[in-house]
Amino acid sequence: MTAEIICVGTEILLGEILNSNSQYLARELAELGIPHYYQTVVGDNPTRLKEIVAIACDRAELLIFTGGLGPTPDDLTTETIAEFFGVPLVEDPNVIEDIAHKFAQRGREMSANNRKQALIPQGATVLPNPTGTAPGIIWQPRPNLTILTFPGVPSEMYRMWQETAVPYLKSLGWGKTMIYSHTLRFWGIGESALAEKVAPFFHLTNPTVAPYASGGEVRLRVSTRAASQAEAQELIQPVAAQLIEIAGADYFGANTDTLASVVGQLLKDANQTVSVAESCTGGGLGSILTNIPGSSEYFLGGVISYHNSVKTAVLGVTESKLAEFGAVSETVAQQMATGVRSLLGSNWGISITGIAGPDGGTEAKPVGLVYIGLAKPDGNVESFKYQLGKERSRDLIRHLSACYALDILRRSLEGLGIRG
Amino acid sequence: MTAEIICVGTEILLGEILNSNSQYLARELAELGIPHYYQTVVGDNPTRLKEIVAIACDRAELLIFTGGLGPTPDDLTTETIAEFFGVPLVEDPNVIEDIAHKFAQRGREMSANNRKQALIPQGATVLPNPTGTAPGIIWQPRPNLTILTFPGVPSEMYRMWQETAVPYLKSLGWGKTMIYSHTLRFWGIGESALAEKVAPFFHLTNPTVAPYASGGEVRLRVSTRAASQAEAQELIQPVAAQLIEIAGADYFGANTDTLASVVGQLLKDANQTVSVAESCTGGGLGSILTNIPGSSEYFLGGVISYHNSVKTAVLGVTESKLAEFGAVSETVAQQMATGVRSLLGSNWGISITGIAGPDGGTEAKPVGLVYIGLAKPDGNVESFKYQLGKERSRDLIRHLSACYALDILRRSLEGLGIRG
Repeated sequence: MTAEIICVGTEILLGEILNSNSQYLARELAELGIPHYYQTVVGDNPTRLKEIVAIACDRAELLIFTGGLGPTPDDLTTETIAEFFGVPLVEDPNVIEDIAHKFAQRGREMSANNRKQALIPQGATVLPNPTGTAPGIIWQPRPNLTILTFPGVPSEMYRMWQETAVPYLKSLGWGKTMIYSHTLRFWGIGESALAEKVAPFFHLTNPTVAPYASGGEVRLRVSTRAASQAEAQELIQPVAAQLIEIAGADYFGANTDTLASVVGQLLKDANQTVSVAESCTGGGLGSILTNIPGSSEYFLGGVISYHNSVKTAVLGVTESKLAEFGAVSETVAQQMATGVRSLLGSNWGISITGIAGPDGGTEAKPVGLVYIGLAKPDGNVESFKYQLGKERSRDLIRHLSACYALDILRRSLEGLGIRG
Repeated sequence: MTAEIICVGTEILLGEILNSNSQYLARELAELGIPHYYQTVVGDNPTRLKEIVAIACDRAELLIFTGGLGPTPDDLTTETIAEFFGVPLVEDPNVIEDIAHKFAQRGREMSANNRKQALIPQGATVLPNPTGTAPGIIWQPRPNLTILTFPGVPSEMYRMWQETAVPYLKSLGWGKTMIYSHTLRFWGIGESALAEKVAPFFHLTNPTVAPYASGGEVRLRVSTRAASQAEAQELIQPVAAQLIEIAGADYFGANTDTLASVVGQLLKDANQTVSVAESCTGGGLGSILTNIPGSSEYFLGGVISYHNSVKTAVLGVTESKLAEFGAVSETVAQQMATGVRSLLGSNWGISITGIAGPDGGTEAKPVGLVYIGLAKPDGNVESFKYQLGKERSRDLIRHLSACYALDILRRSLEGLGIRG
């Protein structure tokens, strides 16, 4: 059996709302092991909705509709589907009672419009809506075709899905095997370069391996269908181990790990602390580090030295060096890092100084040029230079700068080499 | 002409990513006045993608594809479309050059995989991608059918849409009347409270007024369809002026204004500077302030005093007060604000200390309790207490804290009262 998701609503076509219902259902179907190959959005228009139903019946056996179950005249999903299959609607007295009861509870009168919500195709079963007035249906209008309908309100749909649809689908035998995934995360290598290194793995069929990239991070997702987590792990683990070995130092963590959480764990393991000195990121590195609950165990704080006066007066950057090399330089990055390390008394000090743009770039120092300084527990200091690309946005340059800083610290804590 | 949006990517079918590209394109099409009746999602599968193309060609004249333009083997959109129309792919030397140039700028080698991104159907025009390596195409494979392709990465897609696709569609005659909107932005009032104050406006038909809320901010969108910006303004302006008057001090700006940009402009106008002392936000306030290009004119920097030792040693918070009242207190917030103001020599000093959770809350000081200190140009200091709600996430509490701090500074600079 394959499923298909059909979301009905002109407001989606107008871009007024984000279609998060599709994502929710997609993830749920994947977990239950029910394949689905298409998602469709169509407006509140009976002719077009019927065309979609015709197409979907030909390529799937489970059609899941969301939206168009409300009381207003533009809510047409149930009657349109019934019409398509040539089945009359009948009023369900239990639904009428339920709606009236809910209105009474809220101290309101049920309106005539709401009676429409109690009309269901003859032969269909009501899919109860515990929180709202619009119930869905479970219906087999013909052999080997099942229809489930849900209201568009996400909170109502989620609960109906979990409380009624999931048990129903499991009763049909679904969910005996589920998709399990293990995501490997990488920093410091591009998607295409990593893909080249691990190319043969993309041909595996069980588990499968697929690459993703966003915001400078690359991920490999290793997935399999299995009857239990343990069974999945047996298939996934050896492949994940090989990928990690091939990728080497660019692999930093798995699943919900982030650069900040991994650095945090390494610092906790080493019983060490870090502080930050930030110029172009303006506090963004500290913000990412403190996004992790419990970061107070290893993060002492930092200095946002946006103006040069803060670099000299608070961090002790030498005025003459600042004048000679400029704020965006190896020397100033190093002095910022050692400055904040000694001011705050942390084991590590890490600094960022760069040109985030869109203005302020020159031929010699273009937008995207960033220096990251690292003052180490032994008192030594290093710095690393990055050209993040002048065509990139201010936002992205700042984000990448903070991530590279975290990655430098990660590699240092793990005793790995660093590419500047 | 009607359009159709087709998003390609197995990761959408697996529910791994939210299909925000569809919403973006839907809104843009609505603004240009181009009708579209269907959106489809299909996986990285050539057979099924071809079936979708066949269906879409029959019901629309403009097909907009996103996703599947990357360098990896599962990125198949371009070659599948070309195959469907029986047109060979040719390598575009300019694209090869552009990709190589981008890799060189980042100090990396272009991989063999990336050459694939330069293959475009014979007869198609390249739709340039200024920020990424995957260009799209503009192609008329047959009369009365236009295909536009975009990468799935939202930031790349948005820019390509605005810079190339919109001018192209306008050159075809679209967008003669457009939807013009003016968005009013509010901080310090809830959506339902504001909605109640301006309720009669929601019945207007031209312009229309609609409320939205997210992340603590409330917006009212005033929209109309018109042939020109000037014509739209004539309808929108009087309504916007009335709404602003009704809302009073909670209105802070319009359209692309943010609390940080408004505060920045007010500081520039007053020729004043600000510095920050951050505890629970860990640099987030500085990060938001420096998100604004040119913020170096008024933002000097700050101290991230996450650990109490930084509060005392760097900001001069009194040890005895810290012991007596605790780090999350009116007194410490005030001392942090005055401390950073005098350390950095700014006109204003603003501080945040609070309990972001999920742990660390007590009966007396629950998660969500935040104090914001404001040291003023005249040397006086105030503090404001907020209960942001212990059911809220760490992320949201930190975000709201930074926004309230900005709003306090905004109101102070505008000479308005502040609600703690």
